Formats: sequence, C-alpha cells, structure tokens
Amino acid sequence: MTKAYGATAADRPLEQLTIARRAPGAHDVAIAIDYCGVCHSDLHTVRGEWGGTLFPCVPGHEIVGRVTAVGEHVSDFSVGDVVGVGCMVDSCQTCAPCEAGEEQYCEAGMTPTYNGSCEEAPGHTLGGYSQDIVVNDKFVLKVTHPTEQLAAVAPLLCAGITTYSPLRHWQAGPGKKVGIVGIGGLGHVAVKLAKAMGAHVVAFTTSESKREDALRLGADEVVVSRNGDEMAAHTGSFDFILDTVAASHQLDAFTGLLKLDGTLTLVGLPDAPHPSPNIGYLIMGRRSIAGSLIGGIAETQEMLDFCAEHGITADVEMIRADGIDEAYERMKRSDVKYRFVIDIATMDA
Amino acid sequence: MTKAYGATAADRPLEQLTIARRAPGAHDVAIAIDYCGVCHSDLHTVRGEWGGTLFPCVPGHEIVGRVTAVGEHVSDFSVGDVVGVGCMVDSCQTCAPCEAGEEQYCEAGMTPTYNGSCEEAPGHTLGGYSQDIVVNDKFVLKVTHPTEQLAAVAPLLCAGITTYSPLRHWQAGPGKKVGIVGIGGLGHVAVKLAKAMGAHVVAFTTSESKREDALRLGADEVVVSRNGDEMAAHTGSFDFILDTVAASHQLDAFTGLLKLDGTLTLVGLPDAPHPSPNIGYLIMGRRSIAGSLIGGIAETQEMLDFCAEHGITADVEMIRADGIDEAYERMKRSDVKYRFVIDIATMDA
Repeated sequence: MTKAYGATAADRPLEQLTIARRAPGAHDVAIAIDYCGVCHSDLHTVRGEWGGTLFPCVPGHEIVGRVTAVGEHVSDFSVGDVVGVGCMVDSCQTCAPCEAGEEQYCEAGMTPTYNGSCEEAPGHTLGGYSQDIVVNDKFVLKVTHPTEQLAAVAPLLCAGITTYSPLRHWQAGPGKKVGIVGIGGLGHVAVKLAKAMGAHVVAFTTSESKREDALRLGADEVVVSRNGDEMAAHTGSFDFILDTVAASHQLDAFTGLLKLDGTLTLVGLPDAPHPSPNIGYLIMGRRSIAGSLIGGIAETQEMLDFCAEHGITADVEMIRADGIDEAYERMKRSDVKYRFVIDIATMDA
Repeated sequence: MTKAYGATAADRPLEQLTIARRAPGAHDVAIAIDYCGVCHSDLHTVRGEWGGTLFPCVPGHEIVGRVTAVGEHVSDFSVGDVVGVGCMVDSCQTCAPCEAGEEQYCEAGMTPTYNGSCEEAPGHTLGGYSQDIVVNDKFVLKVTHPTEQLAAVAPLLCAGITTYSPLRHWQAGPGKKVGIVGIGGLGHVAVKLAKAMGAHVVAFTTSESKREDALRLGADEVVVSRNGDEMAAHTGSFDFILDTVAASHQLDAFTGLLKLDGTLTLVGLPDAPHPSPNIGYLIMGRRSIAGSLIGGIAETQEMLDFCAEHGITADVEMIRADGIDEAYERMKRSDVKYRFVIDIATMDA
C-alpha cells in the first residue's frame, strides 16, 4: 500500500488516500517518487471538467523518483537509478506510430499515467501524486540532471516534451524565427528549449509584467500581444509559432505573423472553441494551423538529455501535498512562476 | 482597341465594352484570346461581393490564345504559338518567394490578371473576357495540348494549378491516399490530377448524383459526405485531403479522416467563416489545416505539360460571350459540369 493524494468525486477536495500498486512484473520498474509536477490537465481531470473522469482519481504525470525494484527482464534500469515518468505508461507497441516511436499517437490509444484503463484495481491508472508507482520499463526515462535540480526536472516530463516535440518536428533551430505564445507552465520551458536549439525566439505574452521575465528566460524579443503595433512589426516573419495557450483566443493574430509555409502549432485544448480562423491568412501564404501531443518515449529521453546538457529545468515553486487544492486555485489565476511541484516527502507528515 | 465583356458597376449586368491594350513592350507578348474559362472569383469580383472591385471590371483569368506579336527581348515565344495566361500577370521578381518561383506569394503582392493595379488605363488590369491581351513574357505559358482540346485547357490556368500545386506540395502520389472534397470546377480537375499522379483517390461529394461522375473522372472511391457511416469507414486513413469547397462548412468531418501528420488543405475562401475547427482532432494526430493559393509560373507550366502528357483537360460547357450572366446564375446553382468556357469568337457577332 502506498499513500497518495486524490479525489473521490469531482466536487471533493483532494485528500490523502491509500492505494495499491501492483507487484513489479518481469518488465516493470518500481519507483519511489520524490517529486511530481502539477499540470493544468490534473485539475481539469480531477474536477471532472473534461468528462470521463474515473474516481478515485490520483493525478500527476510529471514524475521524478528513484528505482526501488526491477523485474527480471529489465536490463536498462537498476535499483537507485534516478528516473522519470511522463504522461504515458503503456501503448500497443505494434501499430505504425508505436513502431515509429510515437507512442503518444498509438492507434489503439496509449494508456495515460492517470485516468487510463488498466487491469489492476481500481481498473484505471493512478498517477504521480503518490509515494510509489510501478511502470513498464519501456515508459521509464533516465534522468541525468544533478540531484539538486530534480524537483525542477519533474515538469519537463509533460511541459518539456509537449513543447520540445513540436519545436523539433517543425525544425526550430539556427536561422529560424520562432514564436512562443503564452509564458506559463509550458511556454516558459518552450522559450528555454527554442533558445537552446539555436532559434531566434520571440515570446508573446498578454501581460506587460512578464516582459522582463521572458527576456530572462532567454527570449530574444518579447511582444505584448495586446499591442497592435508591436504585433504588426512582425507580420509575415515567423517560420514557426508554438501556441501554448489553452484558453479560447483569436488565432488570426498569429497566423498573420507567419511567413510563407509557416506553421502555427497548438498544444492546448480549449474549453470553448477558438474564434474560427481566417482561412484567407492560410491561403495567402500556404500557412498551416497544426496540433501536437506530448512526444514519444525515445523523444522524451532525447529531451531530458538535451535539457541536462544545456542546464535546462523548469522554474518551479515547491508545495506540500496538502497544498494541492490551494495550488490549483492559484494556477487558475496564473499565479505561479511557472510550475508547482509537489514534494512527495510531505505525504509522510 | 479590343472588344471585351465586363461591367461598369457591381449592380449592372456584363455588357460588351471597348477597351485599350498597351502596345507590346520589349518583354511583352500580345495574344489573341480564343477561350476564357469562367471562375467563381470572376462572379465575386464583378459583382463587388469581395469589396474593392475597380470598374469597369473585365474578369477572366483562364485564358488560352495565340501569339500575335512579341517584344524585341522576347525569345521564348513566337507569333502563332498557342499560349495561356492564368491568374497573375506581374510580380516584383526580386523577393524571396519570386526568387523561388512562387510569384503567387510575392511579398510586394503579385498583380492579378484582372482588378490588379497597373500603369496603363484605366489604372487596373482587365482580364480575359476580351479579344486580346498583352502580358509580360514571364507570365505567359506554353500550351501543347492538341488544338481541339484548347477550350478545355483554359480552366487549367486557374482550376488546374490551384489544385495541382497543393497536390504536389503535399506529395500526392503512389502509396498515398488522397481525398478531394467537392466535385465542381476545381474538384473535378483535382480528381483527374491526383489519379494521374498515382495516388489512391477518394472523392467526397454531398450529392449522391455525382457518385457515378466522380468514378468516371477517375476516383477510386466516392464518399457521400452526408453519410456518417461512409465517412466513419475512412477515419484516420488519409495522407492528404484537398478541400475545394468555398462555402462555409464543417472541417472536423475531414480532419478526423486524416492519419498521423495528415493535412487538410483549403483552396476556397468562404464568404462566412467555417465553424471553428476542433483543435483536439489536430492535437491527437499532429494534423494540420492549411491553405494554398494557385501556383507559381514554373509550376503552372509544369502542370500544363503534365496535363498534356496525361491527356487531362477540364470538362467544359462552351458559352457565348453574351451568355455570361446566365452562366453566373447557373454556376451559383452548381448547374455546370464542370466549367463554363467563353468562346471569344462570339464577341465578333
């Protein structure tokens, strides 16, 4: 049995629960969790805002911990290794996307780290707001950052890969002008990643107060998107814009900034539809609006290695497990710079 | 002076006008027009439906004719050559898109064949509903189809290149499953082109009555898009879907049919916005919604050569010049299979 924090119903606060983890099978890795990041998806799911939440619900898919046991067929991990687990814990392993290492697009549907169906009790997966987790070794990542950075590594497992994957897919790098829309949990990591990839990075924020911060994070330029003149100065100049804002917003302001063949990629799912995009902006420059979902396991490892090499972590604020509900409320007000991380050791208290 | 058909105001029918063409300059080609296709854009422009129409307005950008004179620096064309002119008659020739042969995306703005600004009277370009036209040789295309097919070649200059360019850009070809949405002026040519490129072609139509016709045009399969079961059978299976429908319509029905990394490309500008697309469909398969505008001059020549080689022309219904207004009314009812072409010789009558 292991302690966890979760909710027994959508209208209940999170509380300490006791849950069971399966005994490690031949291909499993058992992990004592040290840190778990707090993602907006956690809040949407545990409060039933997306529908389909299975209770009890234990959120958390930005997990860093230490290996405590490995199954007999596990050769890549040993007891004591520092490891990570992200948004997926299983996939079919046989469809074309899985064969291509893009398990996030598994045709049978990948198994999310929480709220996904599984064979063990209670019949659905329980996430990282807990002391322990047992995961198939194919979905466990190696973490090589220094020990003192591990709390700040946790958010890379979702916020990091969700931005790294599209930046790589659309080839952010030297000679490319890349925009990052929204300087929050995802966007602040995206600025760091795009800069480390060698792109010219422009951060877009609605908030003048984030201008200095965005420059500190590594942006070459910052545009306050409510300022029409600032926006117009960048018309037709971007190779790629990564839009991390989930709230419904006008996309035309950004498609118009793309150059010929440029792409605006969205990684957030809005609660209400965005205003319908102006198709003329797409036609007049062969521009695209695309979406992207996390990244594959191999790419997640690549991202972690890239971040370790470049000294990249998230900017985090550590919280106690019993402070999760308060953190959710602050997160809803964007009152966090830039990601809450639960110190799992506080569950013992 | 040359006879033309056009309108002197948005609320006036088209009538026979007398217009002037410039004397051919050193780089110009003078062309006696034989045939001019009737595009939906002609109707929108001459009736002022898009705003910004300059009167008198002479539409027409699907032009086939014979060279009657060439300027002293013209070496690629000789008197008597059969040539075509499409949607553009000039561009800056120095920006990056022009350098890349994609004059349609000229950063200074290409000059449209009609309703574009120019130095000669009346200060804006006058299109192909006329007996003669004078065009810079860089914007003149060679036509090698047999003489008896020339009327049916005219629509290739807009409907052909508008569909050929995105089919090439998104690599329609052997091993690819390609959808064509809307079996009309553009779509019926797109089906022929995609088939000739070697793709597996699925035609989407709202109209059961077009099923047989779409098969005759070369579609491997036809889906009546109002039929949910027929649509669902193709979920997640398309590499590329080319949507030729300009009327406002639901895009989600088609983004959901794309496979991982698939693209839905729109070539029609809707009068009213499409319902806002479901971003979840984009995120869950890294799918894109894109736009595309005609094609460059080199690509238009490539398209004409490809069509000549594969025996591809448009399916046309010939009309007299004084029948244009009636043709517009029929076109608005989709009562044409599949493109009207004006027999310019009827202007002499």
